[in-house]
Amino acid sequence: MEMDNKNSGHIAVVGIGPGMESMMTQQALQALDEADVIVGYTVYLDLLGDRFEGKEFLSTPMKQEAERCRMAFAEAAKGKSVAMVCSGDAGIYGMASLMFEIKEELGADAAIEIIPGITAASSGAAVLGAPLNHDFCVISLSDLLTPWELIEKRLRAAAEGDFAVAIYNPSSKKRHDYLQKACDILLETAEPERACGYVRSIGRDGEEYHTCSLAELRNTSVDMFTTVFIGNSQSRIIDGRLVTPRGYHL
Amino acid sequence: MEMDNKNSGHIAVVGIGPGMESMMTQQALQALDEADVIVGYTVYLDLLGDRFEGKEFLSTPMKQEAERCRMAFAEAAKGKSVAMVCSGDAGIYGMASLMFEIKEELGADAAIEIIPGITAASSGAAVLGAPLNHDFCVISLSDLLTPWELIEKRLRAAAEGDFAVAIYNPSSKKRHDYLQKACDILLETAEPERACGYVRSIGRDGEEYHTCSLAELRNTSVDMFTTVFIGNSQSRIIDGRLVTPRGYHL
Repeated sequence: MEMDNKNSGHIAVVGIGPGMESMMTQQALQALDEADVIVGYTVYLDLLGDRFEGKEFLSTPMKQEAERCRMAFAEAAKGKSVAMVCSGDAGIYGMASLMFEIKEELGADAAIEIIPGITAASSGAAVLGAPLNHDFCVISLSDLLTPWELIEKRLRAAAEGDFAVAIYNPSSKKRHDYLQKACDILLETAEPERACGYVRSIGRDGEEYHTCSLAELRNTSVDMFTTVFIGNSQSRIIDGRLVTPRGYHL
Repeated sequence: MEMDNKNSGHIAVVGIGPGMESMMTQQALQALDEADVIVGYTVYLDLLGDRFEGKEFLSTPMKQEAERCRMAFAEAAKGKSVAMVCSGDAGIYGMASLMFEIKEELGADAAIEIIPGITAASSGAAVLGAPLNHDFCVISLSDLLTPWELIEKRLRAAAEGDFAVAIYNPSSKKRHDYLQKACDILLETAEPERACGYVRSIGRDGEEYHTCSLAELRNTSVDMFTTVFIGNSQSRIIDGRLVTPRGYHL
């Protein structure tokens, strides 16, 4: 449907997964191969290495995401095929929603195609074991775009619903105590022994994973390259991995 | 780390995504290429087509998942390289957690490697627009392995936390009114106009998507091949797609 519109420009918003080419889908690779212009935050572009040498690359610094989207539409309006690169999945804390909002703002004709990628909830879970193998929530602790009160409300709701939880953006220089604050909220409902874990540098050099209790997690420092996993009340550490059972009878 | 153990058997639990080969990662394809034996529910094996002709295939019917896992460990114990196939992501309602539980039950030596895939939350969201572009929950309405009361509790918590929600297994022959029941619970908190949508046969022949309000969704019949998306309070229909903003200032 979207493809009929090719002559008024085509923009693929492409999730590239954690960073290794082997964790991209063939569909994502093909979208980048076919693009005239690749737009994206430079850190993600660097992950792609030499494969796309010779492409035209456009980027903006962090915090200029709306401008980056407008740039993509400007290129598409010239008749170019554009790929907008996102780490992980394009539609999970990625640029997909902003692209639709900017399309509306500009009244742009370009067709938007979203190409999904492996998000850190999936790739991190695979490293850690199977922490999200039942109903789960994904929550970002970044309060750059979201009031902290809403983040707190969601953490409380996640614990009350006995969801497994994947936590994105658990820390940054300005937010060094956010994971501790999040754990304190979860501990209002969840037991201190709750099985948890975290994965650093998923799919990249220096990848490492750790399991721990919720009480231990509260006193752990993690960096911004870490994804944190909180088990539900049935989760266990098996063979050093964090496992949330689906509920099968053995 | 896991790979050191190769001589006592190696089992890759592989998420193949929605079904098209182009939506598998290269890592997943490689794991299947390298396997001596591919184990999995026959419907998923059929999706793979001819590419893996010549491999040894083993399967069990639905509801014999634990037996299927034991079969995988039995093959691995013979020194074979085994791939266990899951649709979507291996660790999201997939076989990953059960494999760790069965490994523990058997005291098996085989190393388990989880290879993530694109889950329906990601692939369906990409078709529908960007419904999960802020904090979200994934909830299955199947009560085969989960008490319905717990599913209700999670739906309530999701609405109270103003999460976007992806609903898996929204319907089956025996559970034709479960989506209606789920919508009624969400409607205790969410407004009837809440932006929603659903995608049928993601990445397969006959793929289709629809947007609607929560009140309309309540009165819609969907089948078991459908993934349903509930927006949060900020979600909107833009250009016929369901979009949950990340919160960027335009």
